[in-house]
Amino acid sequence: MRTSEKMWKQIAQEAQALRDETLAEVGVNIEISDELSGDITHIPNIMLSTSSARITSLVPQEIVSLVSKRIISAQEVARAFLERAVLAQKLTNCLTELLTERAISCAIELDAHLLHNSVPLGALHGLPVSIKSHIGIANRPLSFGYCAPFCSRPRPVADALVVQILTRAGAIVHARTTEPQSMMQLECASNLYGVTTNPYSNILMSSGGSSGGEAALIGLRGSVLGVGSDVGGSIRVPAAACGIYGLKPTAFRVPTTGWSSTPPGADPIVTVLGPMSVSLEGIEMFMKVVAAAEPWHIEPAIIPLPWRAVDIAPSREKPLRLGIIWHDEVVKPHPPITRALREFVDRVSSVPHVEVVKLSPYKHDEAWAIASSLYFTDGGEADMAIMAESGEPLLPLTEWIMKGNPGVKKLDRDELEYWLEEREEFRLEYSQHWNNTGIMNKASGTWENTVDAIICPVAPGVATKHNTAKYWTYTAVWNLLDYPALAFPTGLVDKAKDVKENRKRFMSNLDKENWKLYDPELFHNMPIGLQMVGRRFDDEKIIAILQFLKGHI
Amino acid sequence: MRTSEKMWKQIAQEAQALRDETLAEVGVNIEISDELSGDITHIPNIMLSTSSARITSLVPQEIVSLVSKRIISAQEVARAFLERAVLAQKLTNCLTELLTERAISCAIELDAHLLHNSVPLGALHGLPVSIKSHIGIANRPLSFGYCAPFCSRPRPVADALVVQILTRAGAIVHARTTEPQSMMQLECASNLYGVTTNPYSNILMSSGGSSGGEAALIGLRGSVLGVGSDVGGSIRVPAAACGIYGLKPTAFRVPTTGWSSTPPGADPIVTVLGPMSVSLEGIEMFMKVVAAAEPWHIEPAIIPLPWRAVDIAPSREKPLRLGIIWHDEVVKPHPPITRALREFVDRVSSVPHVEVVKLSPYKHDEAWAIASSLYFTDGGEADMAIMAESGEPLLPLTEWIMKGNPGVKKLDRDELEYWLEEREEFRLEYSQHWNNTGIMNKASGTWENTVDAIICPVAPGVATKHNTAKYWTYTAVWNLLDYPALAFPTGLVDKAKDVKENRKRFMSNLDKENWKLYDPELFHNMPIGLQMVGRRFDDEKIIAILQFLKGHI
Repeated sequence: MRTSEKMWKQIAQEAQALRDETLAEVGVNIEISDELSGDITHIPNIMLSTSSARITSLVPQEIVSLVSKRIISAQEVARAFLERAVLAQKLTNCLTELLTERAISCAIELDAHLLHNSVPLGALHGLPVSIKSHIGIANRPLSFGYCAPFCSRPRPVADALVVQILTRAGAIVHARTTEPQSMMQLECASNLYGVTTNPYSNILMSSGGSSGGEAALIGLRGSVLGVGSDVGGSIRVPAAACGIYGLKPTAFRVPTTGWSSTPPGADPIVTVLGPMSVSLEGIEMFMKVVAAAEPWHIEPAIIPLPWRAVDIAPSREKPLRLGIIWHDEVVKPHPPITRALREFVDRVSSVPHVEVVKLSPYKHDEAWAIASSLYFTDGGEADMAIMAESGEPLLPLTEWIMKGNPGVKKLDRDELEYWLEEREEFRLEYSQHWNNTGIMNKASGTWENTVDAIICPVAPGVATKHNTAKYWTYTAVWNLLDYPALAFPTGLVDKAKDVKENRKRFMSNLDKENWKLYDPELFHNMPIGLQMVGRRFDDEKIIAILQFLKGHI
Repeated sequence: MRTSEKMWKQIAQEAQALRDETLAEVGVNIEISDELSGDITHIPNIMLSTSSARITSLVPQEIVSLVSKRIISAQEVARAFLERAVLAQKLTNCLTELLTERAISCAIELDAHLLHNSVPLGALHGLPVSIKSHIGIANRPLSFGYCAPFCSRPRPVADALVVQILTRAGAIVHARTTEPQSMMQLECASNLYGVTTNPYSNILMSSGGSSGGEAALIGLRGSVLGVGSDVGGSIRVPAAACGIYGLKPTAFRVPTTGWSSTPPGADPIVTVLGPMSVSLEGIEMFMKVVAAAEPWHIEPAIIPLPWRAVDIAPSREKPLRLGIIWHDEVVKPHPPITRALREFVDRVSSVPHVEVVKLSPYKHDEAWAIASSLYFTDGGEADMAIMAESGEPLLPLTEWIMKGNPGVKKLDRDELEYWLEEREEFRLEYSQHWNNTGIMNKASGTWENTVDAIICPVAPGVATKHNTAKYWTYTAVWNLLDYPALAFPTGLVDKAKDVKENRKRFMSNLDKENWKLYDPELFHNMPIGLQMVGRRFDDEKIIAILQFLKGHI
């Protein structure tokens, strides 16, 4: 009988050895200095061949177009992204494995298909796609931030449904990415693979999490489209931290069959899968492909909604109205976030027929009380048992979320019912809050001229120093409400503009703690993200609004 | 301090006195003999004026058309239905109150609107609509089958959302209907109002339940469109028992804001509101009006699905495929049900491009184990407390569902999670079972040529003798799965054809118990209903299929 300690360390060694084998298959032999610090996003282009650097600088829609026109081959594309993913791993520790052989053979088939059929296989023909590791891949280990499942969990016999859908549309699944212990961190550290770092700061900062491997890999363009998951900010926080786009869709639009977690219909706060990409078009391509596959025939929890064309072009009669939440009345964001929001507001305010109104947050502190009470309704028992299985220690942010939150305890049935009813009540009240941005037409009973979307921070700061991401509410409130939310990049921190405020009064202790974390020197040149939020099932609409605004500012 | 017994009896007296006052306001003074027995559906036409008899014989679409064209007035219509509702109450005890003054003043406004605007107010202009009593009406008492809430619950300040929607579309809400103690009966008996009986048998048989007041009232045409609710068969069973149509829609399509129950998003098996009508078109009119009101902007749990046009016209390339479940492998239906199903199959089989296939039920016994475990996750505590408040006794079917079911007990959090996961697993497996009626296209990943709908019994018999409706699974399985299900009438029992089988072998004890209940003499001439079931959110499709089949057989 091995000691517990030996068990988890041994599993981690095996997992990393497996990962390194798959990296070695690519045949990129480049040594990266351990001394590198600061922004390392420029490194891959220096180290890759011109061709690979050029291919990996393209956005998803360009790649599909060029491969479909046979200007470049799927094989060249796959190889270039595999090479760049190797570099990304060496720079940020973002991978759990590469799927080298699968990617190359898939690319060969795609090229052959095009040669014989003259039409691409689908809307993602030739596009490499990376996948967060708790989403199953046929015959590969399936862990979820913990050591024990890597060994003990049977390997899936088939790809997860979303992976099947992407593959049928012509995507080349080439990389699997890291995720933190418990999945419930807004950073990305596990005992299995260690810490994933931020491409813009190298070792100092977190890539964000829990989809931090995706964000770091895509931030370094080792992938241009990936699949993450989000129950409290896990797509949006890392997307913002690494300067990319990330969509948390409305629940039950993207299928989860074949992931490691429980069926989502049984969860009080539903974890969703969603796209992360270097481009907004990449986000939409993913959503369109998933909806077109009509996954509701396979996964009964999915709502049968096609991806709908939305016309949001504003006019004098129907202006586009954006509600701005400057801060949530609990924690004030760091200066660069507020500046970015102000600049965004200034720019969009000058677009004809766009109206910007200040929106009060509605009880975001209560939202966190409800959400945090519903995240671990077993008080974390199941998670503790999985850790005990291999003897792995709790990492600081796992300990914080499970043990430092008053809401997290094993609920009895009546407590669970209480929080579920609080959830429904909060959803109803927030809906009324949104309606109150407009006027009720008493004849029709409908609310008119309500805001079309909310713009707010993704988090109270940019990427965090390791083990400091403890304020979830800017993202988690939208999970509680099941509103679609889109993180988008909007410039970099500038220490000259974003000086630290000399605050003496705070809205809360959390506010003070967050204020202490800000350091203009440290955060200089880190990417800033903002969040656009829609009403439930308005996924199409928020993407269309951002596309429109990007075209006009 | 009054004794408990006095309390509930006093409340019931008050409730019935209030009801009788509202009946008296109509000014119909007709004595109905207590001696009447057997089918009494012909009585109202004998007792009403020719004009009122003619108006109440119309179907919803005719009424709206005639009022909108000003051939008859909304006031004439309202008065005719109020009169007929008084008779229906005297014949079957189906009302909790009439809304006489409201209905008449609403009708006056509608007539005035038409006079001044020349266009009808909406798609239900001038149509009387009845409402099951647990759906709130402004300033009226709100009970839900129990005595205590009638006094203790504050009266709603506004109509329930669905009532607002109907009213804005021009409906005249004229009657509120009975519901059983606990709402969890497939019959309709309460301590508050007594027993609702069946129009086709008068006092011998139940109208079915829990929406039994609606079914009896509509069966006697005291209303031609009403709103019921269903969590285990409560729309479909009474609809079938009284020879009308009833749709249990997919959850989260019809809003429930303003009813007496908990928010549905917090319920493990979601109770839905849905239409009951003398015509299939009435069912569709209701669903169209509700969807057109876009209730998702008010009630965030509602899915933003418009009412969609569905083309189901079959062809050689795309036949219409119906899967028949003859029995559920637990309880064999009584002979008239099986005969009606066989005759239906024979008739539709001769329609060009309609294919009928036998479908095995998928573990319907397990479905009941899951559903019955999730109906009262508090073991019935809350219900017991409400009964204790007024001292009212448990009625036999309340006692049976709460105490005679092994699944009903207060669940702890782990048990609740277990059953929720079983529910999700069952939903996934039934979806696969449905897919397996077709063939998978491996290239696209889609299932082709699956059955379009399932046809099955509504219950293992026609209307029940009082206190004998104890087998829910024919309807409850579709609640567990959240599949839309439509009960439709299809002829009457014929004692000459539907002789009692001399069975010696049974599939289960429940099967034997059900067999014992059959008596051709007793059930002779009772209406028979069948059930058409679609996949989740295929509400439009099952209505379209039945419309098509009715046009061809």
